[in-house]
Amino acid sequence: MPSRLTSTDVDFEAKFRALLGAKRESAADVDDAVRAIVGRVRAEGDAALIDLTRRFDGLELTADTLRVESDEIDAAFQATPPETLQALRTAHERITSHHERQRPKDDRYVDALGVELGSRWTAVESVGLYVPGGQASYPSSVLMNAVPAKVAGVERIAMTVPAMRGALNPLVLAAAKICGIDEIYRIGGAQAVAAFAYGTETISPVTKIVGPGNAYVAAAKRQVFGTVGIDMIAGPSEILVIADGANDPDWIAADLLSQAEHDTAAQSILLTDDAAFADAVEAAAERQLKRLSRGATASASWRDHGAIIVVASLAEAPALSDRIAPEHLELAVEDPDGLFAKLRNAGAVFLGRHTPEVIGDYVGGSNHVLPTARSARFSSGLSVLDFVKRTSILKLGPEQLRALGPAAIELARVEGLDAHGRSVAIRLNL
Amino acid sequence: MPSRLTSTDVDFEAKFRALLGAKRESAADVDDAVRAIVGRVRAEGDAALIDLTRRFDGLELTADTLRVESDEIDAAFQATPPETLQALRTAHERITSHHERQRPKDDRYVDALGVELGSRWTAVESVGLYVPGGQASYPSSVLMNAVPAKVAGVERIAMTVPAMRGALNPLVLAAAKICGIDEIYRIGGAQAVAAFAYGTETISPVTKIVGPGNAYVAAAKRQVFGTVGIDMIAGPSEILVIADGANDPDWIAADLLSQAEHDTAAQSILLTDDAAFADAVEAAAERQLKRLSRGATASASWRDHGAIIVVASLAEAPALSDRIAPEHLELAVEDPDGLFAKLRNAGAVFLGRHTPEVIGDYVGGSNHVLPTARSARFSSGLSVLDFVKRTSILKLGPEQLRALGPAAIELARVEGLDAHGRSVAIRLNL
Repeated sequence: MPSRLTSTDVDFEAKFRALLGAKRESAADVDDAVRAIVGRVRAEGDAALIDLTRRFDGLELTADTLRVESDEIDAAFQATPPETLQALRTAHERITSHHERQRPKDDRYVDALGVELGSRWTAVESVGLYVPGGQASYPSSVLMNAVPAKVAGVERIAMTVPAMRGALNPLVLAAAKICGIDEIYRIGGAQAVAAFAYGTETISPVTKIVGPGNAYVAAAKRQVFGTVGIDMIAGPSEILVIADGANDPDWIAADLLSQAEHDTAAQSILLTDDAAFADAVEAAAERQLKRLSRGATASASWRDHGAIIVVASLAEAPALSDRIAPEHLELAVEDPDGLFAKLRNAGAVFLGRHTPEVIGDYVGGSNHVLPTARSARFSSGLSVLDFVKRTSILKLGPEQLRALGPAAIELARVEGLDAHGRSVAIRLNL
Repeated sequence: MPSRLTSTDVDFEAKFRALLGAKRESAADVDDAVRAIVGRVRAEGDAALIDLTRRFDGLELTADTLRVESDEIDAAFQATPPETLQALRTAHERITSHHERQRPKDDRYVDALGVELGSRWTAVESVGLYVPGGQASYPSSVLMNAVPAKVAGVERIAMTVPAMRGALNPLVLAAAKICGIDEIYRIGGAQAVAAFAYGTETISPVTKIVGPGNAYVAAAKRQVFGTVGIDMIAGPSEILVIADGANDPDWIAADLLSQAEHDTAAQSILLTDDAAFADAVEAAAERQLKRLSRGATASASWRDHGAIIVVASLAEAPALSDRIAPEHLELAVEDPDGLFAKLRNAGAVFLGRHTPEVIGDYVGGSNHVLPTARSARFSSGLSVLDFVKRTSILKLGPEQLRALGPAAIELARVEGLDAHGRSVAIRLNL
């Protein structure tokens, strides 16, 4: 049973706070183990990668087989059924066209004093994309991480994916080929992150590392941050569905369970103004859970972390939703745009009854890498902006320096920074 | 003596790598001490703040005096000399007008299938601005951190500044008043960061914490990250000056020393194609060092971390500069725009002989909070973008779901995510 909260109950605020504060992840402390692995890769290069891959992935590699041959990529692509290839291409095309609108524009202008100012955006030089192995080796994740980098103009995108006992998901290779990635390594874990950060004989270091991974990968990304850039560290997935009683309970139950099947730590929350509808969704979820291949995972998530919030009026929804700050927010109500205008904190919003969140996971065009664990209050989903950086520009001539210099000298003086003042004064013969 | 590297020397690459890899900060391990402080503030609230402020700042506070009264802010403002006030106002106005151009635009559009997509930007709800105390209590830092937040539309900006034995820099209060900040606390260190992150009886929690600080403040920001957003953790300041032999050596020496006076760990690098000019700059720096009030700091920085790189031709400059990825980059050459077009990694660029970097510290209009320690390869200076976040938007009707649904179902199928597929299929009666 998911927990049930009713906004008119006297203990609602306390229960809501408990829901917000509940820890869903038991973060294993792997920092020391990861530090040792990163240190070994840094010191020993390829030899460490080969040894660690033998130990952790049960795979015997050599320096020559760390990288996946283009023949193997082509073969995976050729073997992909046409309907799957078509779906991947549809997704790739839609994600590309949406992200192309995110390219920031350079700005260069001259102000009234004649000072030239501006901002120039440039792509990061190279990106390392981590793709998990095993069950979580998703081709959609390749598209969502690689396309914004490509659109940003990143010149080199290298990918790595662990091959447990040699097995690679051919669809991950096919997705990489569709994205134009041909530099792929068959290593994983903290050792792959370290190789991207510091480089080895075979793998050139990158400027930024992105992509999801397990606790070892996340810890390694945190440890190499600074040497390279990293993306956000994503937590377990979440959805908040705000739904009125006019919805089909089966549709809403299906949406809630689509998050729950990701992970036992995932969280699905229904917020509705109709208690009878809440009951109907709960019943529908129970029925549907029995038929899911990942029913055990979804059941555990829905039971342990799921919640149903019943409010007296949907007017209460924006404030509660902003406190939850969900990764995914479905607005299955009569006027979704009106409700959306009243709230601010969400990674992605899905408007209306015919926009299940899953469309955004695959083919909507927006990115499925989104802020979790209430971080939508201060951060955003993955975009082209994550693969560019800005240089600010100033250009003065002698006249502009005469106009602005005295104010700079005064501020340097009151801050006690002599040499600051002098670097201006010396040019003005002051 | 700064180190001297000459690009034609056989050991140049090794020496250049050593320069890039040199550690300038000895990061004190204060994590455990900070963890204890953060835990106490979280558990005990105001009482912990009062006790820790007594202990660390030698100041006796009560819950009523944690916050600086508006009378005290007004008095500081009134007592500011007119020429200082004018300089602060010039800086404020120029920073504001530059940052107003950084506001990202919302995007909402309908594609060929009739799918509505978009991105909506909203401001973070509240920001806590940390301002250091003592010698590093800079009014310019208040402007540089507060203005982008204001321009972004942040509704609440709270500030905190430690008052050692009760003393507050009145110019910091005056700068806050110019920025429209009236919520100011006289606490500092890890305890102030914890108060912003978790709240106390007197201080409401914020959504994001920004601003520079010592090792305790930096460690506290890292520890509360996730609960709140944080800005970058800035390292010691740096400048790279690329200069030809046509410059006045005294001007260039002044620019190099203006970084060096910040901190013994600061780094100033000259890159030139003229060895005689390099000698002249070095001699000028020795002369100028004797006359600086912060001469000891500047000397230590210039001696221990300063470097002069002599190249055979300025054509070598872009590649070397991009590897250094300097926080500040001065291009004191005949064609600064031409050189700028050839390089990519720099936090801020200062074009031509009449744009000393110090103009950017105060009154240029661009931000002086910039990426250090080679992170300009993958990150940018502080801007309006640091105070907003983006929600991505999808809206389909039944027709669009019929068009896109099958591709989503196919991808869910190959990824083994049943419930994902069902949430689409159930709406299409599949």
